[in-house]
Amino acid sequence: MDPQSTAARHVAVIAGHLNCQSPSAAAPLALAACLHYDPPELSEKPPAFDLAALRRVLDGHDLAARDWLFRLMEESPLFCPRRRGDRTFVAPDYNQTKEQQRAVTMRRIEYLLRRGVFEGWVTGSGPEAELRKLAFFECIAIYDHSLSIKLGVTYFLWGGAIRFFGTKRHHDKWLKATEDYQVKGCFAMTELGHGSNVRGIETIAIYDTNTREFVINTPCESAQKYWIGGAANHATHTIIFSQLLINGTSQGIHAFVAQIRDADGNVCPNVRIADCGHKIGLNGVDNGRIWFDNLRIPRENLLNSVADVLPDGQYVSSIKDKDKRFAAFMAPLTFGRVNIAATAVYISKVALAITVRYALTRRAFSISADGPEVLLLDYPSHQWRILPLIAKTCAMSSAANYLKRLYVKRTPETNKSIHIYSSSLKATLTWHNMRALQECRKACGGQGLKTENRIGILNCEYDVQSTFEGDNNVLMQQLDLLCLRERDLLGRYASEVSQYQAQGESKQKAMLLSHQLADELARAFTERTILQIFADDEMTQSAGPLKELLGLLRSMYALISVEEDASFLRYGYLSLESAAAARKEVMKLCGDLRPHALSVVSSFGIPDAFLSPIAFDWIQANSWASLSNE
Amino acid sequence: MDPQSTAARHVAVIAGHLNCQSPSAAAPLALAACLHYDPPELSEKPPAFDLAALRRVLDGHDLAARDWLFRLMEESPLFCPRRRGDRTFVAPDYNQTKEQQRAVTMRRIEYLLRRGVFEGWVTGSGPEAELRKLAFFECIAIYDHSLSIKLGVTYFLWGGAIRFFGTKRHHDKWLKATEDYQVKGCFAMTELGHGSNVRGIETIAIYDTNTREFVINTPCESAQKYWIGGAANHATHTIIFSQLLINGTSQGIHAFVAQIRDADGNVCPNVRIADCGHKIGLNGVDNGRIWFDNLRIPRENLLNSVADVLPDGQYVSSIKDKDKRFAAFMAPLTFGRVNIAATAVYISKVALAITVRYALTRRAFSISADGPEVLLLDYPSHQWRILPLIAKTCAMSSAANYLKRLYVKRTPETNKSIHIYSSSLKATLTWHNMRALQECRKACGGQGLKTENRIGILNCEYDVQSTFEGDNNVLMQQLDLLCLRERDLLGRYASEVSQYQAQGESKQKAMLLSHQLADELARAFTERTILQIFADDEMTQSAGPLKELLGLLRSMYALISVEEDASFLRYGYLSLESAAAARKEVMKLCGDLRPHALSVVSSFGIPDAFLSPIAFDWIQANSWASLSNE
Repeated sequence: MDPQSTAARHVAVIAGHLNCQSPSAAAPLALAACLHYDPPELSEKPPAFDLAALRRVLDGHDLAARDWLFRLMEESPLFCPRRRGDRTFVAPDYNQTKEQQRAVTMRRIEYLLRRGVFEGWVTGSGPEAELRKLAFFECIAIYDHSLSIKLGVTYFLWGGAIRFFGTKRHHDKWLKATEDYQVKGCFAMTELGHGSNVRGIETIAIYDTNTREFVINTPCESAQKYWIGGAANHATHTIIFSQLLINGTSQGIHAFVAQIRDADGNVCPNVRIADCGHKIGLNGVDNGRIWFDNLRIPRENLLNSVADVLPDGQYVSSIKDKDKRFAAFMAPLTFGRVNIAATAVYISKVALAITVRYALTRRAFSISADGPEVLLLDYPSHQWRILPLIAKTCAMSSAANYLKRLYVKRTPETNKSIHIYSSSLKATLTWHNMRALQECRKACGGQGLKTENRIGILNCEYDVQSTFEGDNNVLMQQLDLLCLRERDLLGRYASEVSQYQAQGESKQKAMLLSHQLADELARAFTERTILQIFADDEMTQSAGPLKELLGLLRSMYALISVEEDASFLRYGYLSLESAAAARKEVMKLCGDLRPHALSVVSSFGIPDAFLSPIAFDWIQANSWASLSNE
Repeated sequence: MDPQSTAARHVAVIAGHLNCQSPSAAAPLALAACLHYDPPELSEKPPAFDLAALRRVLDGHDLAARDWLFRLMEESPLFCPRRRGDRTFVAPDYNQTKEQQRAVTMRRIEYLLRRGVFEGWVTGSGPEAELRKLAFFECIAIYDHSLSIKLGVTYFLWGGAIRFFGTKRHHDKWLKATEDYQVKGCFAMTELGHGSNVRGIETIAIYDTNTREFVINTPCESAQKYWIGGAANHATHTIIFSQLLINGTSQGIHAFVAQIRDADGNVCPNVRIADCGHKIGLNGVDNGRIWFDNLRIPRENLLNSVADVLPDGQYVSSIKDKDKRFAAFMAPLTFGRVNIAATAVYISKVALAITVRYALTRRAFSISADGPEVLLLDYPSHQWRILPLIAKTCAMSSAANYLKRLYVKRTPETNKSIHIYSSSLKATLTWHNMRALQECRKACGGQGLKTENRIGILNCEYDVQSTFEGDNNVLMQQLDLLCLRERDLLGRYASEVSQYQAQGESKQKAMLLSHQLADELARAFTERTILQIFADDEMTQSAGPLKELLGLLRSMYALISVEEDASFLRYGYLSLESAAAARKEVMKLCGDLRPHALSVVSSFGIPDAFLSPIAFDWIQANSWASLSNE
């Protein structure tokens, strides 16, 4: 196909869309002045590497299953397909009240259920089933965070609690019903007074030997269950986290099962429920508050995998230490962390794919008098803003795949490293996602504010998952630099904590006082880890253009990390001259990556319909003629 | 009042709210475990300085007028008063479609109009009237960004254009009608194809000597007017920015007036209007798109203060140079920049007042086994997160007041410095506001996500105003450091640009390539400026506790700026030892400021009703009993 003749044809098409008539005097001039849209596929050079091969590296697994699920969503009118220009996009309608968003989220779940998407999600097992489930969750999250969270509460939190905290009697009763979405479970852990500090929760369960029941109470307002996803409207059952009192002595936190709504959706007796209200995002999830008033549940509803109460009221546990019992209860939350980390990378890909495509078709200002306007992505500052984020996203894809594989093949021996990796990567990858969304939002100017263009609303919707920290890294000699930083920070941290202790502070207080070094150390650890995993993925490729591209991305990831972390300067790991050289090198790498930008985001595997109008012919999508199709 | 007996009474009140009955065995334990709320006014030390005096410094002007307007809004049911616990809060209901938000915004405007809030906004003049108008805008923005923007479009952009670009015939016809909101004007500058680069707009006006009219056309889809606030539903008139063609030659951009809706709200012939759709914020503003099809307007509708077309078609202008004519048209936008800068500081105050009050009543984790949980604001990391933001907000209040005074007393001689200060301060203050909102959102945990708690939604609503840069600063010897940085960066920037030019790049391209140094230089300039203005405000105070507090805040502002800007290390302005010392000093200042946190935010002058439930008794506000009041 000859790009020039295509461009000429394109101009003719655009001209045909001009349905307003100019006065004759102005007509020739107007035509000369008008902007037209060049598809980046025609204006950019063809890919230098195999796009499908890069997608296999980045997605890591279950490519066909992902595409199947994407198509399911594209096919259904429930997913709000909307026509813009000659394309159709799917995205939720956020100009809805929370009540409307909740209702349509439920209808989407019922549709996916009918199409068999959730088969094996609760009753299945084995690494392949788990990877496939994780892939599905990433795809669903790309459509809508509420849909993903509402499913996650029932399938991961409720389902995971039944599976991991429960025993055969619980599995037989609830697992299949959960997979079929007959039982809609929620997970009542957080309270108004205690969020992160779960051990401090105030809900109380006591055992009544006469009736062989537990009696559950919300003893005060701060003990009300809070933020419970699914509780406000739809959940039929809940896990209740509660202090367990035996003969007046607390045995710590335990998990119980209770029904909270009957088959007609009425709230059960001795349970009160209220709405958490409108939120800045996730309004498709019906977060609720729950109070328990002498709620009685059978003894058998204690999830008893690690501890039990015998019919006579005797407390027995296979784990003697209260702290260790608590840790056992928290372990299944790991799946959620793995899922959130992997999803964060996928969301960054949506935003970057949209932003790069827009930056390859939108021009602003000319740099010489009366010269043509310049493409956004040809501005050095725009390249600096976007291209390092692409490199980070690719590196973090590798890290997320590594984490998923580690998780699905877990053994008792790998639990500790899974905990460390899932915690640090979740923090780093969600932080990166928020930053990518914010930069992309700004890089798209005003168009980034329209919800139909997705980036801005993804920022609002995903703000909830943002937590702390960063990213980073280097070539072979710079890899030494990252290791040096990590080792040195560890030494500094240990020494500062000791100094505070020598001054009479407790160890806990000393660690609080050293919060900056702790943050810097966590960042150093995670950045070094991601770089290593990404480099390992690169090593498995045979020599060729794809391997060269991965090398470029790895160099960019490493150098931008050095550039962005002041600790390299602060602690003297880098001389002023080397810092200046690193900055120049990032700038050079921007130039090297620029020609590959379209190819890389095209390898992200996001279907066009899940991008947005500004990623394609945004002039046509905004034309008066296209209004009649909306 | 004895704090202890008050606390005891408070516990009794809380206990009275417990309307669920615990089984007898658990009752005594439950009471001991329950959280209760201590008002920070009782738990914190009394203020060490005069709160009203600090408010006078920070607000700078029109305190009584602000309070009058706050009360007007609190009194009207249109402003959504809602009961939470024993308090009433006013805030928009964001669980509404854009159509509902637009309708209620219009009703609020009509109410404020009836109460005389806009008197003199267009026809008034003089520094005092302008300062008062700016104060009113800040108060309105605290309630809702949409309300403020919708008013700003008509009163500042449309009204300012008529006033500054127009001459007597335009003033007579439209100024009074605008002030009375009979004429609802909008401002059609931006187009789909050209936003920031206004000179590139494609709308075309030609003069028809036969009918003595201008004929205005949208020659192609990229020329459609875009983002025009007020256009989608309510505007009756618009300013049209258009290329003016005289005998086939463009004279550059000129501003015209056209009516776009008749008295019944119908769109006028030869005008087409469409909606910009749902946005991530500002949905109370009806942004629209406009196309013109041979729209004919009288010759007199050219706003002719700098250029005119005589009845015979001859073009005359008092400014010969096209670029200078363009600059003259942009000048009135300065008022908007001044307003946005001042408003940004005020919004930061709302978020910080809420966050500090919550952090003084919310506890999490204990640092010793079985010890009491610790107040959020007693964590060093929480102090580091919040207290520097308070210092910056106070310093920026001074800077905003300085900018406002400079603006309202403007002369032809000060225009250039107003342009420089308004541009740099707008960028820095809005950037600070976004960062403060994001930090406050996270510092309030999940509660920050509820729209009724304001912080999270302010973040979404104000995202549109975020642009680039930072903050900063130092004591007397560190003030030298800031000046050194600014001088040195200027030298480096000039030298780098020359080097690129020596390599054959154009000056424009060389400046684009040096974008990092340009950013660092802009930051250095603005931070030094703010510090000087803040120090000047401190100088005017007589010795005493308030002056001491201002000194503390200034030191914090100076040192956190050094701490946060890596350029001090990157270019060697600071040795590694001094950098470590500066960090320790910030930590010490956190401790020094901690006891004053409540007093400072109490001096921000934000009425309680404009804060939110988590700023007061959030346990009571969330109680089951309070649901019946909602």
